[in-house]
Amino acid sequence: MSEKPFALAVKALVADDQGRILAIRRSAASSQFTGNWDLPGGKVDPGESFDVALAREVAEETGLSIVLTGVAGATEYDCPNVRLAVLFMEATVQSGEVQLSSEHDDHAWVEQSKLPEMGFAGQLREFVCNYCRR
Amino acid sequence: MSEKPFALAVKALVADDQGRILAIRRSAASSQFTGNWDLPGGKVDPGESFDVALAREVAEETGLSIVLTGVAGATEYDCPNVRLAVLFMEATVQSGEVQLSSEHDDHAWVEQSKLPEMGFAGQLREFVCNYCRR
Repeated sequence: MSEKPFALAVKALVADDQGRILAIRRSAASSQFTGNWDLPGGKVDPGESFDVALAREVAEETGLSIVLTGVAGATEYDCPNVRLAVLFMEATVQSGEVQLSSEHDDHAWVEQSKLPEMGFAGQLREFVCNYCRR
Repeated sequence: MSEKPFALAVKALVADDQGRILAIRRSAASSQFTGNWDLPGGKVDPGESFDVALAREVAEETGLSIVLTGVAGATEYDCPNVRLAVLFMEATVQSGEVQLSSEHDDHAWVEQSKLPEMGFAGQLREFVCNYCRR
């Protein structure tokens, strides 16, 4: 059994008004997984509630303001110093247009049936495949 | 779409050294679902991290000290004033003997294959059935 502590991360399946999901691609400026597609989100800061953290991360990474609509599921990522418990939330766009930060260099609105074909890495790929199979 | 905000709750699948999972039964002193079986856990307090909240709730409800071992999944509960995003974690017993609070009046260590047969209510029953089917 690993002795590394758990931290909480949150990621969003952000749907547009046609139900397509926003995927973003990690740039060379990203800390890891350059070129892989990802969902917006990140770690919950100490003292921060999960919904505030998710809205903050999505705004930072995509420029969009979101409304949470449901729970999509959870998985875990094993990182060098920590294990991340990753909670995935369903969301819709409240306002804004996509404007990426330097950590990502492309975005796509993807039909749910096509999500498993995106180049997601590792545990995210597995989660998305299970989610789309429900 | 519901306009109720989301709050975070955490629940534990606490395994003993034979891999059996701890279920606890809600007493008449419990706020709701009297007589239903449950998993230990509860809401994350403002400013509290999810792992500290889960250890606190499990200790309050069962007297056990736990170690988190993995992510089991997530679901949502619709409550009168809030929607709960419920993150389920796998855990093992670090120390202690089961000692229930007034909110529960019985406990059982249940083989995973028998968990779906326990009288869990609503969304918890659905989550446990999906978890055991994995």
